[in-house]
Amino acid sequence: MSLTVVGSIAFDAVRTPFGERERMLGGSAVHFSLAASFFTDVRVVGPVGEDFGADHYEVLGRRGVITEDIEEISGGKTFFWRGHYEYDLNTAHTDDTQLNVFGDFSPKLSAASRDCDVLFLANIQPDLQRQVRDQCAEARFVAMDSMNLWIEISRDSLKQAIAGVDALLLNDAELRMLTNESNLVRAARQVMSWGPTIVVAKQGEYGAALFTKDTFFALPAFPLDEVADPTGAGDSFAGGFVGYIAAHPEQPLEADLLKRAMAHGTALASYNVQEFGTERVARLTPAEITSRVTDLAQITAFVDVPLSLRS
Amino acid sequence: MSLTVVGSIAFDAVRTPFGERERMLGGSAVHFSLAASFFTDVRVVGPVGEDFGADHYEVLGRRGVITEDIEEISGGKTFFWRGHYEYDLNTAHTDDTQLNVFGDFSPKLSAASRDCDVLFLANIQPDLQRQVRDQCAEARFVAMDSMNLWIEISRDSLKQAIAGVDALLLNDAELRMLTNESNLVRAARQVMSWGPTIVVAKQGEYGAALFTKDTFFALPAFPLDEVADPTGAGDSFAGGFVGYIAAHPEQPLEADLLKRAMAHGTALASYNVQEFGTERVARLTPAEITSRVTDLAQITAFVDVPLSLRS
Repeated sequence: MSLTVVGSIAFDAVRTPFGERERMLGGSAVHFSLAASFFTDVRVVGPVGEDFGADHYEVLGRRGVITEDIEEISGGKTFFWRGHYEYDLNTAHTDDTQLNVFGDFSPKLSAASRDCDVLFLANIQPDLQRQVRDQCAEARFVAMDSMNLWIEISRDSLKQAIAGVDALLLNDAELRMLTNESNLVRAARQVMSWGPTIVVAKQGEYGAALFTKDTFFALPAFPLDEVADPTGAGDSFAGGFVGYIAAHPEQPLEADLLKRAMAHGTALASYNVQEFGTERVARLTPAEITSRVTDLAQITAFVDVPLSLRS
Repeated sequence: MSLTVVGSIAFDAVRTPFGERERMLGGSAVHFSLAASFFTDVRVVGPVGEDFGADHYEVLGRRGVITEDIEEISGGKTFFWRGHYEYDLNTAHTDDTQLNVFGDFSPKLSAASRDCDVLFLANIQPDLQRQVRDQCAEARFVAMDSMNLWIEISRDSLKQAIAGVDALLLNDAELRMLTNESNLVRAARQVMSWGPTIVVAKQGEYGAALFTKDTFFALPAFPLDEVADPTGAGDSFAGGFVGYIAAHPEQPLEADLLKRAMAHGTALASYNVQEFGTERVARLTPAEITSRVTDLAQITAFVDVPLSLRS
């Protein structure tokens, strides 16, 4: 029972109305790994430069994330993203992107990483996602994320990558863009016609919605009166969602399991946004996750009581 | 146990990507009344012109709505709104507004309407909302809606109107605009500091969120693969929500009741958008409402199962 994730490992410079950080550990694979580390063994695959130090490895190491497949490119620099958010924390504004070692990245998975039970393809170029997916032929569950850039410039490759996975996790606006379908139910149905049996529409502050052939489920984001930095929320959600599934190999990929996976994803994402970058999730405890999932069950449940309506 | 609503009675011309109607019955008080009519006696207060015919009264009458307080202005024309929606059905584009008889409207409530148990002040000029609220001094529960226009041009009067009600129902963007607060939890808290004990943020296709001093609750919109016309969705939601509360005078205004009220509001709104204007709700049945609330409970519930997480 192990989980492999391939994606970006990055340094982020982020400014929000509530503070800023000049250089902090980030990247989709990092946020995903930390979140998933509460559920199962996680192996992270991705390139870093010589500027990636022992202290950065240690953030992952302290959570038990296996970093053997992090490829250090000699003479290279780690992927760098600079962005900011206005008071509308739903929209990230990119100020600078330096691909650095990510520009020539070709994923090489160790035997242990290839031998994973569950695979997550975080948001990277879809040709690379397909390469990795092909290397992990035995994985019982494969999920992926993507972004508007790849829909714009690599749509065909992206659709092929999607055809090869069990679950697509995507922002709702991107799901509409990908399918040219404004109705989210129809958009999800279209994606399912390509291959995946599970579609999760991430909806930022509104939460997330899950679609399968015969299930719809939606959860609001956990209500917070302070959000410091939304960077990595989607990847933390994915880490909780996919991690929960990885931790339950004996359970069928059906509504009961998927709903609980959504709740754990929601809990992880909510902690992630309370502080900058990985700060909060890096020191999160199992009890805090459990407590938030319980709260979430409480605030979304209602008991229907039969009522005599007027005809 | 009766419910009075004051608001607009209108003719709407609406075009969406899925069809159009040149002149159909609409207005906030109409959509609200039809939805609320499944729960209690509803009295509707508002002005119409000489062009408002027996067939229009009959749409309300067939649902048992009491129309005695509809004021017919001789020589006048009924309020008219023309709008359209693009594929993003969340945004209404107004093409024409003719206030007509609504321009000089001064609400005159009959003794029976003033004597209501529950009052809903649909979206009209806030001075008028306050006049009506003052006339219904005995109402045990008063709720109101508003819109961006009044936040822009009558903010002080609107805040005074809000101070006099128990519940404010508003679009989430308007709630932020009203309070100059981007965080929805804080925005709701600010509104509660003015007087109301209940705030409902309407979130369009994402559903609605409920805030009280010690409760948060959110429901997604019911998933639909065809939405014909979103006009009146918010008022239908309000009709289901307030109607449900009106039908349960014996129950405290606490979480259990409010959550079920939210579910019934969501059900009514979902039917409203499936066809144009009042077409669908006008022929809705109690069994259809009950069935949708049951489905909604199903698709939002998850059972939390204790899990041993990795520290």
